[in-house]
Amino acid sequence: MSRSAGCCQSCLHSLFDYETSKTLVIPNLGVGCLFRFTQLLVLLYVVGYVCVVQKAYQETDSVISTVTTKVKGFAYTNTSDMEPRFWDVADYVIPPQSVNSFFVLTNMAITPHQKQSRCPEFPNPSTTCVDDCDCIEGYNNPRGHGRLTLITIPPLSFLTRLSLRPAVLAVAENFTVLIKNSITYPKFNVHKRNIPSQIRSSYLKRCEFNRKTDPDCPIFRLKDIVSEAGEEFQDMAVKGGILGIIIDWSCDLDWWARPCKPKYSFRRLDNKNPSNNLVTGLNFRFAKYYQAPDGEEARTLIKAYGIRFEIIVFGTAGKFGIVPTIVNLGASIAFLSLVPMVADWFMLTCMKKRDLYMRHKVAYLLDDDDTESVPMGTSYGTQ
Amino acid sequence: MSRSAGCCQSCLHSLFDYETSKTLVIPNLGVGCLFRFTQLLVLLYVVGYVCVVQKAYQETDSVISTVTTKVKGFAYTNTSDMEPRFWDVADYVIPPQSVNSFFVLTNMAITPHQKQSRCPEFPNPSTTCVDDCDCIEGYNNPRGHGRLTLITIPPLSFLTRLSLRPAVLAVAENFTVLIKNSITYPKFNVHKRNIPSQIRSSYLKRCEFNRKTDPDCPIFRLKDIVSEAGEEFQDMAVKGGILGIIIDWSCDLDWWARPCKPKYSFRRLDNKNPSNNLVTGLNFRFAKYYQAPDGEEARTLIKAYGIRFEIIVFGTAGKFGIVPTIVNLGASIAFLSLVPMVADWFMLTCMKKRDLYMRHKVAYLLDDDDTESVPMGTSYGTQ
Amino acid sequence: MSRSAGCCQSCLHSLFDYETSKTLVIPNLGVGCLFRFTQLLVLLYVVGYVCVVQKAYQETDSVISTVTTKVKGFAYTNTSDMEPRFWDVADYVIPPQSVNSFFVLTNMAITPHQKQSRCPEFPNPSTTCVDDCDCIEGYNNPRGHGRLTLITIPPLSFLTRLSLRPAVLAVAENFTVLIKNSITYPKFNVHKRNIPSQIRSSYLKRCEFNRKTDPDCPIFRLKDIVSEAGEEFQDMAVKGGILGIIIDWSCDLDWWARPCKPKYSFRRLDNKNPSNNLVTGLNFRFAKYYQAPDGEEARTLIKAYGIRFEIIVFGTAGKFGIVPTIVNLGASIAFLSLVPMVADWFMLTCMKKRDLYMRHKVAYLLDDDDTESVPMGTSYGTQ
Repeated sequence: MSRSAGCCQSCLHSLFDYETSKTLVIPNLGVGCLFRFTQLLVLLYVVGYVCVVQKAYQETDSVISTVTTKVKGFAYTNTSDMEPRFWDVADYVIPPQSVNSFFVLTNMAITPHQKQSRCPEFPNPSTTCVDDCDCIEGYNNPRGHGRLTLITIPPLSFLTRLSLRPAVLAVAENFTVLIKNSITYPKFNVHKRNIPSQIRSSYLKRCEFNRKTDPDCPIFRLKDIVSEAGEEFQDMAVKGGILGIIIDWSCDLDWWARPCKPKYSFRRLDNKNPSNNLVTGLNFRFAKYYQAPDGEEARTLIKAYGIRFEIIVFGTAGKFGIVPTIVNLGASIAFLSLVPMVADWFMLTCMKKRDLYMRHKVAYLLDDDDTESVPMGTSYGTQ
Repeated sequence: MSRSAGCCQSCLHSLFDYETSKTLVIPNLGVGCLFRFTQLLVLLYVVGYVCVVQKAYQETDSVISTVTTKVKGFAYTNTSDMEPRFWDVADYVIPPQSVNSFFVLTNMAITPHQKQSRCPEFPNPSTTCVDDCDCIEGYNNPRGHGRLTLITIPPLSFLTRLSLRPAVLAVAENFTVLIKNSITYPKFNVHKRNIPSQIRSSYLKRCEFNRKTDPDCPIFRLKDIVSEAGEEFQDMAVKGGILGIIIDWSCDLDWWARPCKPKYSFRRLDNKNPSNNLVTGLNFRFAKYYQAPDGEEARTLIKAYGIRFEIIVFGTAGKFGIVPTIVNLGASIAFLSLVPMVADWFMLTCMKKRDLYMRHKVAYLLDDDDTESVPMGTSYGTQ
Repeated sequence: MSRSAGCCQSCLHSLFDYETSKTLVIPNLGVGCLFRFTQLLVLLYVVGYVCVVQKAYQETDSVISTVTTKVKGFAYTNTSDMEPRFWDVADYVIPPQSVNSFFVLTNMAITPHQKQSRCPEFPNPSTTCVDDCDCIEGYNNPRGHGRLTLITIPPLSFLTRLSLRPAVLAVAENFTVLIKNSITYPKFNVHKRNIPSQIRSSYLKRCEFNRKTDPDCPIFRLKDIVSEAGEEFQDMAVKGGILGIIIDWSCDLDWWARPCKPKYSFRRLDNKNPSNNLVTGLNFRFAKYYQAPDGEEARTLIKAYGIRFEIIVFGTAGKFGIVPTIVNLGASIAFLSLVPMVADWFMLTCMKKRDLYMRHKVAYLLDDDDTESVPMGTSYGTQ
C-alpha cells in the first residue's frame, strides 16, 4: 500500500472509529440513590417549573389593539349659580371622538362672552377686573393705558360659579360606556374581540358589566369603574382625574389551553394626594368661538374638569415554539451533566469505601516513569 | 519538608493536575457512522434552523413610531334632501388632526338649530316631538309641563335625511391620504422613514400607492385601501367602520441583510357582521355651537358616520447579539453531549459484539472484595 | 430465587448502580494550567459579560404609560398684516386635549368669512379669485356659470398674510409645558411617576427643566426642547414640525440596583430637509363655523402651522428571574463542558509526552481478537 492510501485510511479511522469513555459501575445503593435523586430534582424543575409554570417552551408576541368607545347618558342640571340646562353626549364628551380614551366633562368654570378689546385703563386693585381679566397676567411689560387684552363682558346667560363643589355634572356617574376592543397577535395571526360572538343582542341591550354576574358584558357604568378603582366618583368629579380601564389579553394560544378572554381591571392613573401639593386632577381650557354679524369675534372660555378614561390594552400571547423549547431543554441537559459531578464528589469524599472507589476510578500517571499508580488518600474532583 | 508545605503542595496538585477520562476506541464502522450522523443532525438543526430560519442569534427590539397624515380631496353634494354643499378637508376630517389615525366623514344625520328651551307641554303621542326631541328620553322623572329640554327649531338650511343610503359623501372614495411615518429602534439607534430619500418630488406629486406598480408611494386612495381590505367603500361609507392601515417594519439590521422597507397591509378592524346584531359601524355625535347677538346659544347636532383609518405600526428588529448567540450555541452543545449516549446505547444493545464492547468499556466493581469484574449479559446505560 | 425476582433485582441494579467514568490524572503543570485558564475565561465571560454587563439573568417587561400635558403662556401679536390680538392656551393648543401629544399653533394663514355661495361667473385669470377661492380646484368638471362653491367674502377683521415669515406666534418659544407621566410595569406590578414625591410644591412652581441644574423638574420651556433637539425654534415655527419628547424609563428593578428615574431626550421626528423636496413641516386646515341669525352658515378657515410635541415613552424593566438565569447558566455549563476537549486536544497533540499520555488515556479495541491495544502515533480526538 502506498503512503497516501495509508494516510487516507488513518483519516477515515480517526473520523469513523468510535471513542467512548471507560466506565466503572459501583453497586452502592447510597451513591446510586443520590445520583437518581439529583437527576429527579433537575427533571422536576424542568418539567414542573419551566414547562408547566413558566411555559418557557413558548414563543411570545405582543398585542396590537383597536378600541372604540361610545358613551351614553343624559343630564339635566339646575343649580343656583347656573342656568338650567340639558346635557347630552355631544356636550360632555370632548373631543367627540378619540382613540383609546374618552373624556367625560364633570365640572366646569365658564367665562362667557370674552372679546378682544382694550382695557379701559391700567388695571389696579380699584378697577373691577376679576379672575379672567388678563390685563396683568397676560402681558408682562404693560405699557399703560389702552393696551389690547381680553376683557370679559358681563355674562348674559351664565355665571362663573363661585365654588367647584358639588360638580356640575355629578349625575355623570350614571352614564354608561360601550367598549369595543379587537386585538391582533400578528406573529400568530390571531384576531380576537372583547364581545363574544355567542352573546345575544337582547342581552347586550340591557346588560351592565359586573365582575360576578356579567363578566362578559362590554357596557360599563362610570360609577362602577371609578369605585372598582377604589375611588369615589363624586370626589373625583370635582377636580377631574385619569382613570385607567386596563384590559389584559394575556393568552395561551396552544390548542390544549383554555380559550383566552379579556380581563378587565380599573386603576386611577394620576396622583390623587401628591405629597408635594402639586395641582391635582385634570382640567384644560377650551373656547367656543362666536362671530357677530359685523364680524366681531367673541368666545366663551371653558375651563373643563373631568375624568379621562384611558383604555390600556396589554398582553402577551405564548405559543409552543421550537427555538425556546430547544434552548430550555439544552439548559436542562447541561444541568443534568452536572449531576455525575455531584455524585462523584459525594462518593469520593463522604463514603466509607472512598479509598477503594478512588483506587478503581482514578489512575495516577507518574510523570517520571511510564507507570500508572493509584493516589493515596488524596481526593481529586472530576474537573 | 514541613507538614504545611506538604499540604500546600497537595492543594496545588489537586488544582493543577489535569484529570481526563479514560477512553476506549472501537473501530466499528456502524457505531462510528451512527455517531457522526447524529452529530451531523444536531449541527444541521443548529446551523440550518436556529441560525438561518429563526435567526436566534439576534437580539430584538420593538419599534417606536410617529405618523403624520394629510388627507386631500374636495366633494360637492347635491341630493334631494340636503342643500347643495361644497366640502373640503376642514369639513370632513374630524378632529382636524389626530395622532396615528384620521376620521373621514362619509355620512351624517343633522339636527340643526337646537335650543335649550321649555317643552310647550308634556309630550305624548299626539304632540309633534320627533327623533331628537328629548323631552322623555332625557329625563327619567318628568315633572309635567314646562320642563327644560332641547327642542329642535324647524331647520332653516338643512333637513334631517330620512334614509342613510346612499352615503352623503360617497365621493370620499376618491380622496387621497399622504402618510408620513418615521420609526426608531432605540436599542440599535436606527431611524427610518417610509418615504425613501431617493424618490423624486415630481414622482411624489403624481404617484398613488399600488402594490405592484408603485409599492413605495406613500399616497393612498381611500377606495383602494378599503378594497384591499376586502370591503366595498360604498357599503362601508353608509354606517362607518374602522379600517387598519398596518405598516410592518420587521427588520433584519445585520449588515449582510437586505435594507428593510415598510410593508403595507389593510384590514377592517371592526366587526362587519356580528352574529349578535350589535350596532355596527362607527358613529359619534358632536355639535357646532352658535350664539345669537342676545347671547342665546343654539347648536347644530351632527351624528357623524365615517371611516376611522388607524395606522398601526408594528415590527421587531433583530441584530446579531452575543448573549442570544451564546445561549443558542450552549443549548446546541448540550444536545451534542447527548449524542455519545445514543451511540453507547446503540453499541451496547443492538450490535452483535455488544458483550465484547461491554466487557472492555464497563468495569464492574464487586462491593465485597477489592476486585473489578466485567458484567455478564446485563447492559448498563451510561447515566 | 424465582426468575422474576432475579429480573426485578437486575432492574434495580441497573437503576441504582452508579456508573462513573474512569479517569486518569496527569500531573503536568502545562495542561493543568491550560485547563484551569480556559475554565477561568468561560467563567469570566459568564460572570462578567452575561451577568454584569448584559444582565441576562433578568426577566423583562415593557412599559405602559399615561401622559398628561398642560401648556402655559400668553402671547400678544401686533403685526402689520393682522389685527392686534391676544392669545391664550385655549386659542393655540389644538385640540385642547389629546393623549401623548400636544400641538402648539405657531403660524397660520386665515381665510375668514367663507360662505357656501355661487361663483358669479366662471373663473378665469381676469376674475379676482385668489388662493382659497376653490372655484377651479374644488370641482374638476366645471359646468360653467353659477356653480356652487365656497367663496370668500372680503375679510372684515383679518387679512390673509402674504408671507409666512416671521411666524405669527414666534413668542410661543417662551411657553412652558408641564408633563405628568405615570408608568406601570404590569409583570412586576411596579408603578412610577416622573415627578418625584419628595419634590416640594414651591420648587415645582418656579422650576424649569435643565439637564444640569434641574434634571427632575417636569416643566419644560418649548424653546429649550427645540434647541436640545438641535433645531432653531424660530425656523421651526414658520412651517411647523414634529418634535419628540422621549422619556426613557429603562429600569433595573432588582433591590440592589439604583432607583430608576426617567431620562428625557429630544429629537425632531419629521424630515427637515428631505432630498425629494416633499412638503416639509406640519400643517392642517380646520374651520370655525358661525351662523347668522337667519341660519346662514359661514366659516373661518384656518391653515394652522405648528409644532406637534409627541411624548414617546419607552423602556424595558429587568428583574431577576429563575428561567433566564437557568438558561444562561445552562449555556455556560455547556461551554464549560467543552473545556476538557480543548485540554485533551492540546495534551495529545502539542505536548512532548503525548505518546505516553495517549497510551494511558486511550485504549484501542482490536476488532478481530478480544484484546486491547494502545494506538501508535495516531491521535484521536475525544469526540
